[in-house]
Amino acid sequence: MIKKSDLIKVSIDTLGSETSISNIIKGLNTSFLRNDNYFFRLFGSQEQLNHELKKFSALKNNVEIIHCDEVIEMNDKPSEVIKSKKNSSMFRSIKSILETDSQAILSCGNTGALMALSLLNLKTLSSIKRPAIASIWPNINGESIVLDLGANIKSDSQFLIDNAILGTSLASTLLKIKNPTVGLLNVGREESKGNEVLQKTSQELSELDTKGLINYFGFIEGSDISNGVTNVVITDGFTGNIALKTAEGTARMIQTFLKNSLKSSLISKLGAFFATFALSSLKEKLDPRVHNCGIFVGLNAPVIKCHGASDHVGIAYAADLLYILIKGNVNDKIKNNIEKKDSDYI
Amino acid sequence: MIKKSDLIKVSIDTLGSETSISNIIKGLNTSFLRNDNYFFRLFGSQEQLNHELKKFSALKNNVEIIHCDEVIEMNDKPSEVIKSKKNSSMFRSIKSILETDSQAILSCGNTGALMALSLLNLKTLSSIKRPAIASIWPNINGESIVLDLGANIKSDSQFLIDNAILGTSLASTLLKIKNPTVGLLNVGREESKGNEVLQKTSQELSELDTKGLINYFGFIEGSDISNGVTNVVITDGFTGNIALKTAEGTARMIQTFLKNSLKSSLISKLGAFFATFALSSLKEKLDPRVHNCGIFVGLNAPVIKCHGASDHVGIAYAADLLYILIKGNVNDKIKNNIEKKDSDYI
Repeated sequence: MIKKSDLIKVSIDTLGSETSISNIIKGLNTSFLRNDNYFFRLFGSQEQLNHELKKFSALKNNVEIIHCDEVIEMNDKPSEVIKSKKNSSMFRSIKSILETDSQAILSCGNTGALMALSLLNLKTLSSIKRPAIASIWPNINGESIVLDLGANIKSDSQFLIDNAILGTSLASTLLKIKNPTVGLLNVGREESKGNEVLQKTSQELSELDTKGLINYFGFIEGSDISNGVTNVVITDGFTGNIALKTAEGTARMIQTFLKNSLKSSLISKLGAFFATFALSSLKEKLDPRVHNCGIFVGLNAPVIKCHGASDHVGIAYAADLLYILIKGNVNDKIKNNIEKKDSDYI
Repeated sequence: MIKKSDLIKVSIDTLGSETSISNIIKGLNTSFLRNDNYFFRLFGSQEQLNHELKKFSALKNNVEIIHCDEVIEMNDKPSEVIKSKKNSSMFRSIKSILETDSQAILSCGNTGALMALSLLNLKTLSSIKRPAIASIWPNINGESIVLDLGANIKSDSQFLIDNAILGTSLASTLLKIKNPTVGLLNVGREESKGNEVLQKTSQELSELDTKGLINYFGFIEGSDISNGVTNVVITDGFTGNIALKTAEGTARMIQTFLKNSLKSSLISKLGAFFATFALSSLKEKLDPRVHNCGIFVGLNAPVIKCHGASDHVGIAYAADLLYILIKGNVNDKIKNNIEKKDSDYI
C-alpha cells in the first residue's frame, strides 16, 4: 500500500490561458497513468473540474480541488496582480507550496505574473539571486538545456555562473547525463570573443571546472546549440529569448515551406503521401508542444510554465517533467552545488 | 558602343579563403553574363587567374589582373595585418577603391581583417560612426534585411538608428521595396519591453518615422524575423550574430532530420524520390550559398564578404548583389538620408 508521503504532489493552476480545462485534465491523466503515485492539487472552477474528471475515474481519486474563480489574465501587469489578485488560481497554487505538501507548480498562464509571484512567495534557493527560465531544446544528437530564456534581460556574471550550476543539475536530472558539458553563448568560440562580462564569466567558469563543480566547454556560438556541441547552454535572458524565438520561427518557416512544396504538384503530393511516416517523425522531433515548456529554476520549488495554447500532449509532457524533477531531487542537487561553489569562494 | 565610364567595376580579392580560384572565376562569369557592362579587377595570382580565365573568353576581355602573392590568412589577427600585409590581395583590392575607378569590393577572406582594413581605408559614409554587417534573410513572405550581424557587439542607440537608415536603403535597393518597414529586435513587441538603450532607440525611431525618414514598425521579436513582419530588422551585432547562427543551425538541423527520416525505410525512400522536386525547391529557398553574404554597409564603398567556403553559385550571387547596389546608387541614398536625419536634429 502507498503511504501518503510517497505521493508526488503537484499544484496545477487551471485558469488564465487559452488552454481548456478539458485539455489540462486529459493531459494530467496521461501523465498520471505514466507515473506512479502522482497526485494533483487542482486550482480552478470546482464545477468544471468535476465535470472533466468524470471521464477519468482513476485520476479522480488522486486529485484535490481547490475552488478559485479569480483569474490572472494574460495581459494583467505582474506588478499589479501581486497586490490585487490574492485569490486567483495562480496565486493560490503558488501559496500551496508553503501551506500544503505540494512540491511543484504547473501553469499555462501569464509568464510575467507567474515569475513575479513565484519569486515573491517561493523565494530563491540558497544564495541564488535570481531564478532563470530554462527549456529543453532539440539538437542533432538529442536534447540540451538552454537558460536563461527571458527571466533576466541584463547580462551579469554572477547570474550566468548560477545558470551554469542550475543547467548542470537540470541536465543530469532531466536528460540523465553524467557530468554534462556547459557552453557559454558568444559570437564565436575563440577565447578573445565577446564583451567584458562574458570574458570574466568564462574565467570564473574555468575555475569552477578545475574544482570539479561543472564541466565547462568554453564559448559556443549560435549554431552550436542545434549542433548539440554542449549539453547545457548558458546565456542572459535577452540573448536567450531572441535565440529561442528565432529558432522557433525558423523551424516554423521551414515546415511551412515544406508543406507548401509538397502540395505544389501531383507528383509532390504522391511523394508527400509516401513520406508521411518520415515527415511525422520529423514533426515529432521538433514538436513545439513538448519543447515549449519554460522551467523556472533556482526557486525553492520547481515551477513549469506551459505554453498558453498547450494541448493535452504539452500538458502531459510538462507534468512528466515535474515528476522527474521532484523524483530526481533536483533542488537538493542545486543547493548542494551552489553551497559547494560558495564555500570554495570563501 | 559602351563607354568605359558606363562600366560597373568591382575589385575582387581572390586569395585567403577555402574557395578555389576556379570557383571564383566561374561565379564571376555567371554574374558577368547576367549583368550588362560588368568589369572585374582581380587581385591574386596572375598565373592561376589567367589559367582559369581561358575557359571564359568573353569574361577574359572584361577583367584586369593585379598580381599579388601576399595572402591574409583566415587566422591572421586584424590588428596585425593592418600594418604588416600591405601587399596582400585584400589590402590592395580595398586600396583600389581610392586609387582606381573600382566602385566596390568582393572577398571570401578573413572577415575581421576585411572589416578593419575597409574601415581604415574606405572610412565611413557621412556622419556614420561605425559600419554594420547586413544580410538578406529568407522569410515566409520573401526576404528581409537584417543588421548588424557582428560588426559591433556593443548595444548603442546611435548605431541602431544609423542601422535603421542603412537597412532602409538596402531594402529599397536590393529588395525593391518602397518605404520598407523597420523593426527593432527585442524580447517582445510590447512598448515596455527591453532595456534602456532599446527604449531610447525606439523613441528616436518613432520621431524619424514622424518626419518621414523611415517607416518604423516598433519592437519585434525573434520569431517575427522569419514571419516577415518587417522588411528590415535592426539589432546590435552581438544579438544579430547569435540570431543568425541560431537560425542557420536550426535550418541545418531540420534538413538533416528530414534527410535521415526520408532514408529510414523503403517506403520513405520512395516518398523521397517522388518529393525530390518539392524538396529541392525548399533547399533553394534556404540555400545558405545565397544567404551567407555579409554586406558591409555604411562605408564609402559597398563591400561584400562571401562565406569562406562559397562555391560558384555563392560568388555569382554576391557579384549580382554588388551590381545592384552600385546600379541603384545605394550609397547616395544612404548619404542623402543620413544628412536629412542630421539636419533635422539640428
